Amino acid sequence: MKKAAIIGGTGYGALELIRLIQNHEHIELTKIISHSQAGEQITSIYPHLSGFIVSPMEALDIEKLKTEMDIIFFATPAGVSKDLVEQLDGSDVQCIDLSGDLRLSTREEYTKWYHKVAAPQEILDKAVYGLPEINREKIKDAKLVSNPGCFPTSATLGLIPLVNNSVIDTESIVIDGKTGVSGAGGKQSAMTHFSETNENVKLYKVGQHQHIPEIEQYLSELTNESVTTTFTTHLVPMTRGIICTIYGKLKKYMTTEEAVEMYKQYYESHPFVRIREAGVIPTTKEVHGSNFCDIGIYVDERTNQIIIASVIDNLVKGASGQAIQNANIMNSWEEDHGLTQVPIYP
Amino acid sequence: MKKAAIIGGTGYGALELIRLIQNHEHIELTKIISHSQAGEQITSIYPHLSGFIVSPMEALDIEKLKTEMDIIFFATPAGVSKDLVEQLDGSDVQCIDLSGDLRLSTREEYTKWYHKVAAPQEILDKAVYGLPEINREKIKDAKLVSNPGCFPTSATLGLIPLVNNSVIDTESIVIDGKTGVSGAGGKQSAMTHFSETNENVKLYKVGQHQHIPEIEQYLSELTNESVTTTFTTHLVPMTRGIICTIYGKLKKYMTTEEAVEMYKQYYESHPFVRIREAGVIPTTKEVHGSNFCDIGIYVDERTNQIIIASVIDNLVKGASGQAIQNANIMNSWEEDHGLTQVPIYP
Amino acid sequence: MKKAAIIGGTGYGALELIRLIQNHEHIELTKIISHSQAGEQITSIYPHLSGFIVSPMEALDIEKLKTEMDIIFFATPAGVSKDLVEQLDGSDVQCIDLSGDLRLSTREEYTKWYHKVAAPQEILDKAVYGLPEINREKIKDAKLVSNPGCFPTSATLGLIPLVNNSVIDTESIVIDGKTGVSGAGGKQSAMTHFSETNENVKLYKVGQHQHIPEIEQYLSELTNESVTTTFTTHLVPMTRGIICTIYGKLKKYMTTEEAVEMYKQYYESHPFVRIREAGVIPTTKEVHGSNFCDIGIYVDERTNQIIIASVIDNLVKGASGQAIQNANIMNSWEEDHGLTQVPIYP
Amino acid sequence: MKKAAIIGGTGYGALELIRLIQNHEHIELTKIISHSQAGEQITSIYPHLSGFIVSPMEALDIEKLKTEMDIIFFATPAGVSKDLVEQLDGSDVQCIDLSGDLRLSTREEYTKWYHKVAAPQEILDKAVYGLPEINREKIKDAKLVSNPGCFPTSATLGLIPLVNNSVIDTESIVIDGKTGVSGAGGKQSAMTHFSETNENVKLYKVGQHQHIPEIEQYLSELTNESVTTTFTTHLVPMTRGIICTIYGKLKKYMTTEEAVEMYKQYYESHPFVRIREAGVIPTTKEVHGSNFCDIGIYVDERTNQIIIASVIDNLVKGASGQAIQNANIMNSWEEDHGLTQVPIYP
Repeated sequence: MKKAAIIGGTGYGALELIRLIQNHEHIELTKIISHSQAGEQITSIYPHLSGFIVSPMEALDIEKLKTEMDIIFFATPAGVSKDLVEQLDGSDVQCIDLSGDLRLSTREEYTKWYHKVAAPQEILDKAVYGLPEINREKIKDAKLVSNPGCFPTSATLGLIPLVNNSVIDTESIVIDGKTGVSGAGGKQSAMTHFSETNENVKLYKVGQHQHIPEIEQYLSELTNESVTTTFTTHLVPMTRGIICTIYGKLKKYMTTEEAVEMYKQYYESHPFVRIREAGVIPTTKEVHGSNFCDIGIYVDERTNQIIIASVIDNLVKGASGQAIQNANIMNSWEEDHGLTQVPIYP
Repeated sequence: MKKAAIIGGTGYGALELIRLIQNHEHIELTKIISHSQAGEQITSIYPHLSGFIVSPMEALDIEKLKTEMDIIFFATPAGVSKDLVEQLDGSDVQCIDLSGDLRLSTREEYTKWYHKVAAPQEILDKAVYGLPEINREKIKDAKLVSNPGCFPTSATLGLIPLVNNSVIDTESIVIDGKTGVSGAGGKQSAMTHFSETNENVKLYKVGQHQHIPEIEQYLSELTNESVTTTFTTHLVPMTRGIICTIYGKLKKYMTTEEAVEMYKQYYESHPFVRIREAGVIPTTKEVHGSNFCDIGIYVDERTNQIIIASVIDNLVKGASGQAIQNANIMNSWEEDHGLTQVPIYP
Repeated sequence: MKKAAIIGGTGYGALELIRLIQNHEHIELTKIISHSQAGEQITSIYPHLSGFIVSPMEALDIEKLKTEMDIIFFATPAGVSKDLVEQLDGSDVQCIDLSGDLRLSTREEYTKWYHKVAAPQEILDKAVYGLPEINREKIKDAKLVSNPGCFPTSATLGLIPLVNNSVIDTESIVIDGKTGVSGAGGKQSAMTHFSETNENVKLYKVGQHQHIPEIEQYLSELTNESVTTTFTTHLVPMTRGIICTIYGKLKKYMTTEEAVEMYKQYYESHPFVRIREAGVIPTTKEVHGSNFCDIGIYVDERTNQIIIASVIDNLVKGASGQAIQNANIMNSWEEDHGLTQVPIYP
Repeated sequence: MKKAAIIGGTGYGALELIRLIQNHEHIELTKIISHSQAGEQITSIYPHLSGFIVSPMEALDIEKLKTEMDIIFFATPAGVSKDLVEQLDGSDVQCIDLSGDLRLSTREEYTKWYHKVAAPQEILDKAVYGLPEINREKIKDAKLVSNPGCFPTSATLGLIPLVNNSVIDTESIVIDGKTGVSGAGGKQSAMTHFSETNENVKLYKVGQHQHIPEIEQYLSELTNESVTTTFTTHLVPMTRGIICTIYGKLKKYMTTEEAVEMYKQYYESHPFVRIREAGVIPTTKEVHGSNFCDIGIYVDERTNQIIIASVIDNLVKGASGQAIQNANIMNSWEEDHGLTQVPIYP
């Protein structure tokens, strides 16, 4: 049984980690760290956890964490983990960072898109991008994993077989992303106000979203060329779920059935990617509460476009579920251990 | 490993049973019976089950069920199970009926409220009402369990300690129920049409709801007097969740703290009822996807009224989770086996 | 054409006043006053007003308001209007206060429920409670109108015929209120956070809601006895709409049809109260965006309870529409002038 | 005062026409025609209309309509109006068809996309496409107007200035459409079931949507070349509202500000198109209940893509509001008569 701590204990990422670890036979959650609410019971803020968590939240003590913990999950806002990870560098603790601090490979890119001071370059260099469907081997040996963003998980999983097999004109890629409101976290803002968000669809951060460079970076690595994409994000009136609708020009003729076959082959050994049959497009609810990424494919022969729909639960495969999946790989446990729940439907 | 079948395979009750059994170490789901869709894959209707269910749905064959199954869950509409249960009578199969067919103790009451032909009186007499918080001992030895309705589960659990301890004037009880739309099932109707239901609260079946006699019957049994209650049901624009707000005149003075203590004592040995501290009222989301019934209590000293809020997930504690809980008790497994999931929040 | 100002220009009450005045032929909106955002364009905060409002918001200048305005609408949070109304006292300006500052008749009651310093008693004495269905004659001659709260409007309109005709045991009244989230205003809070509120029903402020004394005060005035009621409020996941479900013991036998007839007679001359036929219960969406209060009635002969459902749009009949209705009466315009819109459905 | 009839009286298009005509000083609604519900009161189905409509719905009698009516609105499903319009041909009645029957210019295209028998070619030839922002002059003299589809209204208004000014590579156009559920009408289906649709985003009819050829036809007419577009439609969990997010490669460099200026110039004389300032993107709620089409523009200089967001209320500018706008133009009334309501917000 490995001992784990969650830093950033009162955000949605932490709540979801708590839920999933409760179901995990090899991880024991021993500490929930909250800077602002140390000493408080998490159940007084989130009564749905009554009976599951009994110890109060604790203040951060890096030295204690180093000696007492086996795994640390960072469920912190941007700008926090980079310092802590540095302090833990050299210890035996496995670190999985759910924030965006370590996802971009250069300090310049980070500063440009996050408008914050970046982690030291050597930390960025050590961090392994935790998308198991492209990086499983590297994750096995990693001590520091940078857990992907929610949109990049959905978009990249939707694009990999196309890009890897060079069947798509990478210049033509358009990714239209739609997310539930929990993606914006628990903070109160005009963005998350019920009356402003309900019965409304909002396009936000057009051209400015920090997930743009993350998507491009990993597509560029896959293709060994500089890929730029058009990527937008919409807030829709639901709590959970992401769908990326992806468009691209096919470089060579291909039927929907052939494309489906190509995807199935690519994801054969990946337990969390489910490819729908030709003609079937997944909806966001079909992965609700689960770690699946479901993908539907349609080739529009009239326009020679391929259209991909890639859906995830933003808090599971888009955050905490993927973090557990990474922990499983790092510790040589079954990749899907603790993550085999049936999606909740309806 | 006990072999189980679900009859009525494409309703929401069945979906939730499938989800929960997947997580259960002593039950193996071997058959999904659907009259209208025998031979079809359930995943072609509900793709969220992809990878979990591989056999097609089957037609009903009572003789085969008798010999091959250990447990049968009836997730059928009103009027179906009563005939099937009769045919299974005398066999060794454990039957758990999620429909309302066997909940009322007399044929007259059933016909009056359900407007259908009732089961034979001897079948009604054999059926044990499966609310473990009042009937655990009887359920242990039962072969035929009638699983309670969603509203009666929420309302009765909210009322038992008050009624049992005779602290409330039973003539004054008002139960104002609110439910998510999944309570109306998967059938398409004006009641479940998104555009009519979203941004809307609807009071429905006023004075006619078939859960009225179910609530009254078990309160009358508890008190050995004829209890009538005023009970209404509202449809609110959400998918899952029930809250019953219960009002009653206190017969003797009591503080909120004393009332909370009384509830805690009553439910001490019941793993699925969580009593909130004085001043804290649960919300429906705090039990989402779980088998909990959370209860909050407030004594209005100004008016001498006690106000109880009792929340459940209508498809879990209000249906399929409770059915699994009953199966656990009938088979002497841990009462909460397979039901210890943390609620999904947010 | 009367000149009007709105004080508290960026709340939902103000937005709704702007919408309704745009449709009014006798009122010209000349000033929108905002303390915190004077000088700004309201369209930069609320782009849906583009093309309708061109002047920037202004700082408060009581002296200018006194001389330039005919009507002032206070769409301010609790604790603001009481000082301003005092400064305007003696001028010719008609004041309509949408906040709760002037609704309770004594300073003690206000302080007890609002936890703020009350307006001077002489101001409270001058303020006429602006529920036209009970106070039309007084409103005609008023200079200062205190616009009712949203829940009290719905609850009181639902109760008046019962209380006035003495057919109900006033001790037995239970009012279960449900509201959309816009009732909580535009401020950001845990209460209004989409992810916490969507797919959720929350009972809030149990026993503490400031609308309790408002309801009781006017029922007590009607009956000349001290009426206390049990009144609760629930937040449901929709933006607009209130339904109060009202329960009470009948003092004498009465059929649903007779009760409907009694309501129809009472409201015959009131253009905004629509009584449904026996057996029909209104839903909140049926008054969406309109100034109607729709009422459905059911007598449960089994329990001798009468059940009333009273629905309004909380921002129209529950706030700004009623304010316009009051302005119409104060100025001897048609009572429904500018308020005859068909509800938006679906 | 012109006399008007609505054929297809119980759909959402009809409800919205009734709402808007109530507010119109030159149109008197004298008949509501419903094949299936002749003789019934519309208020018994839609009680929100109580007090507004008193006559029962009528059966269809073309001869009476010919002599008694000035304007007929067809709010019928696909396949109905084409026969009726033919029978009215030659009379003086102005016909406005809200269905898709007359939108495509050839019988072949109609049959291919609608899978129904097309109207006679001469009727198709007579029908004027009722998008006033491109066809105002033709509409003035038309007797038969084919009211545009909801998505084509949003998409075409978003694209016209780009296409007309030849600044976009038409081969690169991707239109990602999202709609509220009322677009699917009042019929009950899996598509409109609350529990399946709430907390869900669904991509539907990929590559098969009958609005694809409508969009392409009018873009092709504008450019005198054959334009094909990639257009998808998503169902989002809200009742009303459409947003089309439109992507295209710029043929020449242009800043966001220049693009905004180009749009403002194009729509200067069109009262219902509102162009947001650079950096501001409209949301669907900002036009709720109104006839506006609001457009936001962003030039992504990094990728040389222009991104357009075009929002409408699908039942107003996307259907009934546009029908009234067309009636206004056909009768030389003010183009915005009866359509100047402020959007309902929030």
